[in-house]
Amino acid sequence: MTEPLIINLAPTGMIPTRELTPHAPLHCDEILADVSQCVAAGASMLHIHARDEGGAPTSDAHVFAEIITRIRELHPSVVVTATTSGRKVTSFEKRAEVLWLKGAAKPDMASLTLGSLNFVSGASVNDPTMINRLAQEMKAQGIKPELEVFDLGMVHYAHVLIDKGLIEPPYYFNILLGNIGTAQASLSHLTALVTSLPPDSVWSLAGLGRFQAHANAMGVVHGHGVRTGLEDNLHLDAGRTRLATNLDLVQRVVRQAEAMERPIATPLEVRRRLGLAMP
Amino acid sequence: MTEPLIINLAPTGMIPTRELTPHAPLHCDEILADVSQCVAAGASMLHIHARDEGGAPTSDAHVFAEIITRIRELHPSVVVTATTSGRKVTSFEKRAEVLWLKGAAKPDMASLTLGSLNFVSGASVNDPTMINRLAQEMKAQGIKPELEVFDLGMVHYAHVLIDKGLIEPPYYFNILLGNIGTAQASLSHLTALVTSLPPDSVWSLAGLGRFQAHANAMGVVHGHGVRTGLEDNLHLDAGRTRLATNLDLVQRVVRQAEAMERPIATPLEVRRRLGLAMP
Repeated sequence: MTEPLIINLAPTGMIPTRELTPHAPLHCDEILADVSQCVAAGASMLHIHARDEGGAPTSDAHVFAEIITRIRELHPSVVVTATTSGRKVTSFEKRAEVLWLKGAAKPDMASLTLGSLNFVSGASVNDPTMINRLAQEMKAQGIKPELEVFDLGMVHYAHVLIDKGLIEPPYYFNILLGNIGTAQASLSHLTALVTSLPPDSVWSLAGLGRFQAHANAMGVVHGHGVRTGLEDNLHLDAGRTRLATNLDLVQRVVRQAEAMERPIATPLEVRRRLGLAMP
Repeated sequence: MTEPLIINLAPTGMIPTRELTPHAPLHCDEILADVSQCVAAGASMLHIHARDEGGAPTSDAHVFAEIITRIRELHPSVVVTATTSGRKVTSFEKRAEVLWLKGAAKPDMASLTLGSLNFVSGASVNDPTMINRLAQEMKAQGIKPELEVFDLGMVHYAHVLIDKGLIEPPYYFNILLGNIGTAQASLSHLTALVTSLPPDSVWSLAGLGRFQAHANAMGVVHGHGVRTGLEDNLHLDAGRTRLATNLDLVQRVVRQAEAMERPIATPLEVRRRLGLAMP
């Protein structure tokens, strides 16, 4: 692999709290400061979650608008993805709110989780009707889906969306391994997943919890990219004794890539590869 | 493969209605007549769903008690599994009701779906807490789980249950392929699933809809058994022009097995292999 490596950073997520770690950026200023360091270190894509004033996950588009607009001011070329997660809000209108932002607040991409699954904390429900509606709305708004895949059936559902004309190539996938209820960070599971992807797919690899470093390394060796960040894992070591920063996690991927003599993709290279608008 | 082939029949399920097919047995007398033919043809395990008087799925233990007791009168050695499906009822108490039957009404096994997933009709939610509670109750009642697996993560969750001491070997799995939101009826997906099973696993293969015949053939060639029946598919042909009977579906598996020179397991052989009580 000599192709430049995509580094997709998920700095915040739904789970980290100030009690769990001092390092997760929850509010706009914190996110700005954190992602600026990480973009300088090599992150070319940002997967953004928002929090309300109390620190709880929110789907409020105003909060996303401020974060996205301010990221664009500092880093006009970095690719910004907004979550449409259904783990805390369930209605289509709430999940889709961020898709209706305009101008500098509009995300380049939005997450589309391709099935229902179990996390340790409970079920995350994305039924076929919801997936189809979110995909339809992303297509209508010209926002590219970030296809979140946790297991074989979710790759299959991408084929279903292609057959329905709801997503268009090149397809961008995050493959997330090591969750309690879905595919594991093994070569066998990765092989079955990757060989099932549609043609013209670009995929980054993430690992949850203690599987993050291994999954990221598999992404550096086999993939187009890596997704990393505190959304997936709070610790730097598998023994969970040292709390990580997002910069630590990005720098680890960069070291892995350097060791494999693999260059890091710039935001403009990622935009070109994914067919996104140029800033 | 020369080991006797397990044929596990799922005659009724949740989806078939009298409007969809004249052949699905919905009520006790119909189920009795149908499974008697299928047991004579080679079915050694029966996966039972119940319906109320109007034909809608029910978790009412009285309805299960009548069906199971009357099956035992006619076929004392056949292995009887009761569903604990959460697709229509969601509370633990409703789903577990069938686990508290006693005497001749008590099922040998009960279904335990190892994760949340999407069907065409919507999400089926089995969160980790629910799975753990159902497994705990099956263990307490001495009812063996029929582990229902639709994707890699569900195999992984069997390992989680083993680590928690909630299930015991030999483990019995139905692997169900070809659903819209989970693993497909491909050799690649089957390989990843089967190589991830714990040691001392016995597995039968099912295919949903038009994938039934192919998945059943893969089960005959590679597996310990096959699950078939109108629960998974209403038609005899992939083109969906000819409505099948349960007997048609069992006889097709028997023909496949004969062509592979593979004997059919008797109910007593299955009881011995799974460590179930002898009648």
